[in-house]
Amino acid sequence: MPTLEKVHSRDLFMGRLGYGQDLLEEITAACTGQNIRLARIEAIGAVQYARLGYYDQNTLEYRFFTIDQPLEITGLIGNVSVRENEPMVHAHITLADKAGNAYGGHLATGTIVFACEILIETLDGRCFERKFDEETGLPLWNI
Amino acid sequence: MPTLEKVHSRDLFMGRLGYGQDLLEEITAACTGQNIRLARIEAIGAVQYARLGYYDQNTLEYRFFTIDQPLEITGLIGNVSVRENEPMVHAHITLADKAGNAYGGHLATGTIVFACEILIETLDGRCFERKFDEETGLPLWNI
Amino acid sequence: MPTLEKVHSRDLFMGRLGYGQDLLEEITAACTGQNIRLARIEAIGAVQYARLGYYDQNTLEYRFFTIDQPLEITGLIGNVSVRENEPMVHAHITLADKAGNAYGGHLATGTIVFACEILIETLDGRCFERKFDEETGLPLWNI
Repeated sequence: MPTLEKVHSRDLFMGRLGYGQDLLEEITAACTGQNIRLARIEAIGAVQYARLGYYDQNTLEYRFFTIDQPLEITGLIGNVSVRENEPMVHAHITLADKAGNAYGGHLATGTIVFACEILIETLDGRCFERKFDEETGLPLWNI
Repeated sequence: MPTLEKVHSRDLFMGRLGYGQDLLEEITAACTGQNIRLARIEAIGAVQYARLGYYDQNTLEYRFFTIDQPLEITGLIGNVSVRENEPMVHAHITLADKAGNAYGGHLATGTIVFACEILIETLDGRCFERKFDEETGLPLWNI
Repeated sequence: MPTLEKVHSRDLFMGRLGYGQDLLEEITAACTGQNIRLARIEAIGAVQYARLGYYDQNTLEYRFFTIDQPLEITGLIGNVSVRENEPMVHAHITLADKAGNAYGGHLATGTIVFACEILIETLDGRCFERKFDEETGLPLWNI
């Protein structure tokens, strides 16, 4: 059975990210600035280029790569929780190029916004803290 | 820092769109019919064929193209706000073909529903009005 | 016009699915265990491999296929409703490989979790019951 905790919706923030900003850093700055420690996130928009991660399930390391072209964000889904007492944004993103071909991965620093509309729903609940998980090598929720 | 406004969840509408309908026009009709002026949207389903937009960040113009085959909607994420005093649906969509290959872009008129399950969460808050943005050439929120 | 019903948010559950579990079966087990009969779902994470469905709109039958490699889940969007008096999870998923190429489809049994973070928002409202729909051959909501 999945490990689920009941949480509660608190505040909803809707808005946009600025042209030329780093997508992940901007979302993180918004969460730090508003002291958001638990949230869900969704966004659409476009990026000037993207840097994504793919987690290698054999070596247990992220491989990062850049898609060096303008892309639509067809969907960003993410969450905010706590790692080493700081808000940590974990987001995955799907993108599409001018021919409509889709790409995706773990959103990494180095993805630059062209335009982006975002919704952050903050949540109340027990602390979702990321701790090193031996089986996967990932910082997973300690719940 | 992102420009974020606090909004409040009002009503949730869940339902389905009819076979053969235009996906974007139907969502827009639902919003106009219910006087929805601020909302978030998500949907899954399938389309008979799709017409998508890709925004050319150099020429500042949309290029539209059709994917002329039946596709699964693996995710639609969007929002509703106001442009020239009318509700405007802005949605991005990810699709997949029979081999599982994914496509995506800005949802345009001309995407025809096979079956579609949608959730619209209406929001209260200050007016999110779209105004021409010089830097991107896009109708962005004037917040 | 779309057929929409007003529903109400009840509870939010956030958590993670276990390594090696079947993604669809685990979500279904969570819903059965908590007696969830109406909900929306979103998730991100990674899978060891995926089994997806594509609905053939001509023959009105699902074709299932496996993508036999580790993939990021760039987005899962789904819902829970009732079919033959049991909770039924309907989810579509978008995935990405190590080169960032995206895939997607109807989530089928046989998709194995590497790590997965999920949010389930339970809903109150009239019964969304799936009944056979002649036009599409699908079990659609009888609303």
